[in-house]
Amino acid sequence: MSIDWRRNNSLNNFFFNCSSCDIESRVVIEDFLDKKLEKILEVKAEKLNHAIEKGIIKFFDFNGTPALQFKKEVGKIESGTVIYFKDKTEVIRGFPKTRRTLMLSPTIKNHFKDKIVVEEKMNGYNVRIAFIGDEIVALTRRGYVCPYTTKKAVEILDLNEFFNDNPDLVICGEMVGTDNPYVSHYYEEIGSLGFRVFDIREKLSNNPLPLKEKYELLKKYKLPSIRVLGTFNVEGAVDEIKKIITEIGEENREGVVMKDPQMEIIPLKYTSSQAHDDEISYAFTFPFDFGKDFFFSRVIREGFQAFEMEENEEELQERAKRLGESILYPMIDTIKNVSAGNTAGEDMVIDVETPEEAEEFLRHLHDLGVYALLIEFKDKKAIIRRIHQSTTDKINNFLKGGLY
Amino acid sequence: MSIDWRRNNSLNNFFFNCSSCDIESRVVIEDFLDKKLEKILEVKAEKLNHAIEKGIIKFFDFNGTPALQFKKEVGKIESGTVIYFKDKTEVIRGFPKTRRTLMLSPTIKNHFKDKIVVEEKMNGYNVRIAFIGDEIVALTRRGYVCPYTTKKAVEILDLNEFFNDNPDLVICGEMVGTDNPYVSHYYEEIGSLGFRVFDIREKLSNNPLPLKEKYELLKKYKLPSIRVLGTFNVEGAVDEIKKIITEIGEENREGVVMKDPQMEIIPLKYTSSQAHDDEISYAFTFPFDFGKDFFFSRVIREGFQAFEMEENEEELQERAKRLGESILYPMIDTIKNVSAGNTAGEDMVIDVETPEEAEEFLRHLHDLGVYALLIEFKDKKAIIRRIHQSTTDKINNFLKGGLY
Repeated sequence: MSIDWRRNNSLNNFFFNCSSCDIESRVVIEDFLDKKLEKILEVKAEKLNHAIEKGIIKFFDFNGTPALQFKKEVGKIESGTVIYFKDKTEVIRGFPKTRRTLMLSPTIKNHFKDKIVVEEKMNGYNVRIAFIGDEIVALTRRGYVCPYTTKKAVEILDLNEFFNDNPDLVICGEMVGTDNPYVSHYYEEIGSLGFRVFDIREKLSNNPLPLKEKYELLKKYKLPSIRVLGTFNVEGAVDEIKKIITEIGEENREGVVMKDPQMEIIPLKYTSSQAHDDEISYAFTFPFDFGKDFFFSRVIREGFQAFEMEENEEELQERAKRLGESILYPMIDTIKNVSAGNTAGEDMVIDVETPEEAEEFLRHLHDLGVYALLIEFKDKKAIIRRIHQSTTDKINNFLKGGLY
Repeated sequence: MSIDWRRNNSLNNFFFNCSSCDIESRVVIEDFLDKKLEKILEVKAEKLNHAIEKGIIKFFDFNGTPALQFKKEVGKIESGTVIYFKDKTEVIRGFPKTRRTLMLSPTIKNHFKDKIVVEEKMNGYNVRIAFIGDEIVALTRRGYVCPYTTKKAVEILDLNEFFNDNPDLVICGEMVGTDNPYVSHYYEEIGSLGFRVFDIREKLSNNPLPLKEKYELLKKYKLPSIRVLGTFNVEGAVDEIKKIITEIGEENREGVVMKDPQMEIIPLKYTSSQAHDDEISYAFTFPFDFGKDFFFSRVIREGFQAFEMEENEEELQERAKRLGESILYPMIDTIKNVSAGNTAGEDMVIDVETPEEAEEFLRHLHDLGVYALLIEFKDKKAIIRRIHQSTTDKINNFLKGGLY
């Protein structure tokens, strides 16, 4: 069965083509999808149907299995949630947004009780890995099945035993390293590509396992955990985390996630100054493509961190200098680059068996609205160039005398 | 006659109270206001009426004279335009937005012909002064009659002779100095308050006088002109203006406006790095009150200027450091200030005869949506504190552990 994309599907008018009999059918599955989903998700059918009409929930075809993707939050169901209508209905909930604190004190004491576990937050991209029927899929944050990530997850990790024993759990982690098409960052212990698990969650409920259980499962199935940086009493945690953040920053690492050991309180994240500047520097390499929001929030983080760290004159000057350079230098480089006749773009390396596999990945990027080209394929490495058109066009316009 | 504010006024249904007979009247002035305005402004009556319904054009009462204020552009009529229905209909057009270039080359050569006159752009607020019947009014950029500015303009300038001879001209200039309620900036030659004329324009057409005529009129009527920094052939202008901008920046002055001597081509502005940082520094003193747009555009200007100035490593470092410090230092100061229990605000000094006059000015600010308090009145100086509530509230929230 495959979905007929020419028709408007809804929860009770669902069009499909049968691949065996070649007949186009319309199933009026009243009292099926809508009533069933309403019950499973605890979201009213009208609300779900309304979201389908608005394009917030989209039907898609996953290797012949009808599926739904939530492009935004609907009721309590997170953006990035995916539902597969296989032999049973499988719900992989979106990964919840991790809230951020700008101040360690008093937030840690107010927010947590007794103890917190501090795990590292790595700079890569968020991936959920789950078992659908007999297939392993890797979903990006927004709920797309990324062909590259799926292939790599299975290569890097030995997942079969885990999912055979725990088909209703979802592995949530960060794909990191230099050779990935989303967020390239060098980690000494990772190199080109690696995966680190930070959460294990239940499929439908999205409940995370308590940390002790999570660590035991990861150990049992030899799955790589994100680094655990310590367990602290909330009373003394602030000073410890300040130290950790300073060290992590000096190593150009991103930050920490603070967690309740039972996972009954939502985790909080906190990041290093170097990570803020790193992102600002990226944003200003493509100033007209990356939002003003992106920039503003990171600058605000710097302000509160500098305040809380009680930095001396010299440390402040160093922070200010680094911030200014992160804004100005990449922007000037890009202006020079465009002025020399080039396009503002970034090259990414991915491991693929064939050029066709690279092309398949490019189609996936195009589906996401990202414009990218295959530049080179050699020794099973593909160089993909992501083009930042708005930056290129705007800079060209201003260089030619366009008015602001 | 005064307008009845309880009713919905439109161009052909105009309600007013007669102050002498105390009767409330409705004038159906068909074929009057709408047909007349359509003809005068060359904008269709439907468009004008639509703008009135939307609140884009507002009726107001100016000392008993019905008047209209354009809050946004309508057709070719600029935002800030004000129309008075006195003995004759007086149209004071809004001051046109001066376009900016990010690059001196090739823009100057592309945009102008033969020669340009470079005038200084000062850091104050834009004021239009005009004669309405027998009254002199000073309008702010958005078209409000500012009581303080009106009073000060008449004090500072000797305008009677000019307006007696030229009732159909509008004087456009910058109110500058430390003691003003909008943009306080110290200029050695100005001190507490001064006015500099940059344009003289015709009332209804908004046509600017050619520069030679303007300078002659200003000389004849002893009105203070903005500084003229030179007249250049467009061919050699770029290097000259680079020098001027560097000098002006070192003196913490704002920038230049480049003009066609005949004023037949629209002028262009270009500003110093120090002016950009000065504004960024102000924006980050009240980060949650001043838009992200405000910040982004100024950073972009820095990028293009650094590129065009072909700065060496040291100059670039200096520019980056100054930028970083302009963002970070004021923000940290404000966080410290709010953390000590204060409100994020700025104090402004204005010259007034009585506390009542200060209160009248505060009412004017409230009408503009600005929250300000009278802090002190002494020796005919009023200290007014403008409160930045959003910055105060957000910082307090984050300091107390509010999540981002």
